[in-house]
Amino acid sequence: MPDSTWITFLTDYGLENKFIGVCHGVIARIAPAARVLDITHLVPRGDVPHGAEVFRQAVPYLPVGVHLAVVDPGVGTGRKPVVLVAGDHLIVGPDNGMLLRAADELGGVDAAYELADPRYRLSDISTTFHGRDIFSPAAAHLAAGVAPSAMGPPIDPAGLVRLPDPVRSVDSGVFRGEVLIEDRFGNLQTSLDSAFLREGGVGIGHTVAVATARGSRELPFVETFGSVGEGEALVHIDSADRLALAVNLGSAADLFGLHERDTFTLRAV
Amino acid sequence: MPDSTWITFLTDYGLENKFIGVCHGVIARIAPAARVLDITHLVPRGDVPHGAEVFRQAVPYLPVGVHLAVVDPGVGTGRKPVVLVAGDHLIVGPDNGMLLRAADELGGVDAAYELADPRYRLSDISTTFHGRDIFSPAAAHLAAGVAPSAMGPPIDPAGLVRLPDPVRSVDSGVFRGEVLIEDRFGNLQTSLDSAFLREGGVGIGHTVAVATARGSRELPFVETFGSVGEGEALVHIDSADRLALAVNLGSAADLFGLHERDTFTLRAV
Amino acid sequence: MPDSTWITFLTDYGLENKFIGVCHGVIARIAPAARVLDITHLVPRGDVPHGAEVFRQAVPYLPVGVHLAVVDPGVGTGRKPVVLVAGDHLIVGPDNGMLLRAADELGGVDAAYELADPRYRLSDISTTFHGRDIFSPAAAHLAAGVAPSAMGPPIDPAGLVRLPDPVRSVDSGVFRGEVLIEDRFGNLQTSLDSAFLREGGVGIGHTVAVATARGSRELPFVETFGSVGEGEALVHIDSADRLALAVNLGSAADLFGLHERDTFTLRAV
Repeated sequence: MPDSTWITFLTDYGLENKFIGVCHGVIARIAPAARVLDITHLVPRGDVPHGAEVFRQAVPYLPVGVHLAVVDPGVGTGRKPVVLVAGDHLIVGPDNGMLLRAADELGGVDAAYELADPRYRLSDISTTFHGRDIFSPAAAHLAAGVAPSAMGPPIDPAGLVRLPDPVRSVDSGVFRGEVLIEDRFGNLQTSLDSAFLREGGVGIGHTVAVATARGSRELPFVETFGSVGEGEALVHIDSADRLALAVNLGSAADLFGLHERDTFTLRAV
Repeated sequence: MPDSTWITFLTDYGLENKFIGVCHGVIARIAPAARVLDITHLVPRGDVPHGAEVFRQAVPYLPVGVHLAVVDPGVGTGRKPVVLVAGDHLIVGPDNGMLLRAADELGGVDAAYELADPRYRLSDISTTFHGRDIFSPAAAHLAAGVAPSAMGPPIDPAGLVRLPDPVRSVDSGVFRGEVLIEDRFGNLQTSLDSAFLREGGVGIGHTVAVATARGSRELPFVETFGSVGEGEALVHIDSADRLALAVNLGSAADLFGLHERDTFTLRAV
Repeated sequence: MPDSTWITFLTDYGLENKFIGVCHGVIARIAPAARVLDITHLVPRGDVPHGAEVFRQAVPYLPVGVHLAVVDPGVGTGRKPVVLVAGDHLIVGPDNGMLLRAADELGGVDAAYELADPRYRLSDISTTFHGRDIFSPAAAHLAAGVAPSAMGPPIDPAGLVRLPDPVRSVDSGVFRGEVLIEDRFGNLQTSLDSAFLREGGVGIGHTVAVATARGSRELPFVETFGSVGEGEALVHIDSADRLALAVNLGSAADLFGLHERDTFTLRAV
């Protein structure tokens, strides 16, 4: 890779401390010409499925380069630090499920290596901050041209940790979906995408019944928030092409009692 | 523009999701040498007057380049995406009032064009994320040297959407002003600036009476917060040269019951 | 310094306003080739000891360059704006205690100069935003190659403002320490480091008694959070090599009633 390679960077470290600045510093010292593009550092702490989904949805828009993604509640335990090769892209992070959904978006894993060579780590390894001690140095060395295969022993891609696929099915016109991401406004992004719904015959203009443990509710399937009145519920296709449950100027999470990883059913009425 | 042009970037997208990272990614793929300078992404959601005022106050300190400013509650409706030419600067965003105050600071709009040419948009346009699909690609292509006139049909600058000017007047020694920005501490930046007050004979060292719907209150016009005791109210000229109402280690918004877009009167006593 | 010098940047300005963007803009206009690395801008407002400690702990990982650190509750008063020379590094900020701990990490202050020359300030100096008007311009001119000695009169390093050292002692096996940083989860980083504890015979595997005004409590000294059950208290060595008091998925600040600058005692039992 050229020395000016992009390193994109996604974590749950937060912004109110020194952690992100320190990782940027580690990268700058090893690969001064690399350019770091922060995706977000506000993934809910330790929430691997949330982080993996944000990473998956961001990666199609990112430049070719090294993608450093660290949501790592198991830091200091046995989970392996790895680099994945996916076409022209490299993905660096913990092998805990964070990485494969994004790698799939990039065409799948061609090869994987453990980040084991001490030449590409800091000299002291803490038990709690591998972002600084292992992952950022690896990303920087890779951006500076070190081959992924130099990082450590190869790993069989088939053995990498894979999160379960989100629930997504349709049977006799009844869709079953899962909440992927709840944002701070209570909007609920789901596992159902527009093509899947279209094949099942559901789309904009329909009224749909959404059923949860709280009961069933009928909603319009509309273009966008502004298509309904204030305080009214709706479903729409969001900017990631996923069906989202929302309330115009309100909280769908509150209305439906649904949160990340919860499931629901939906059918046209 | 040279390929290493600055793109400054202001939104209400927040930092806890992937939106800003995705826009940075879109820019990096189109204009890899452009440099992005984030102003803030924490404008209150959908608050165009707040965003327009922050943009206006920031722009005199920004480098020449493309200024990308997206607070866009009407995304997906009829408001036009535009680029404005203001001297050596280009301003990209929705034509909803966000842009003209900043353009005025840069000497006014010399020309305006609609962002209509599909070559300078992403291939799929969502209904809710034009920052990714229309505005970031346009800013990147402009930074990479595409002429503003290539973006789409020219627009008469006189027809661009202009927010009403903030309330600011003086009559018989009584000033009338408006709260422009309330910060999270309850400090209130107003539409009255130091020159306007000086012409009306009011400045540091005076005692002023500030009247709101809650009644009138006398305050010292001082150099800075530390000039009064803890919990005491004051007025001072802030770093944007605006009169600000403040309480030392307290909230002027609470004390006066004043918030953004509210008006008040002020006179020397 | 070469024109592409790093400027690292630490403040308490927050991210929800234009302040950081404006400082980046001021730097970009003076030193377009300089690269700015944000450490954090969420130091608690006006908290110099917190800011100084974050700066101290970050600086060993930062690239050679200009380190701009502004937590400045005394802005507009008599405290001097300064640049410190520390080996190959330059440190810019207010002489109020923010700077010397970081300078010590870099080998100590070789020379110091007041930021007095108007050529290296903006033309208008506000009373409240010296980050924009004095510190960012100085950092940018230094990054662009202006000599520190050109900034203003030399200052005797011995006269620079130094915060008191954090409490840290041991007597007859009883350690006394101080809370340096409380994070938003209630984890408490202390002034005791692993070497100091080791010399006093305390380390991983011991049970320790921590005594505060609330009484004494026995805790395991473990490798990391995951070594104890949910809701259980522990002490461990954090990623900055400091002893930290923590509760697995809970708040040590709440449990112990301890906050920044509070002291406690610790002994092996």
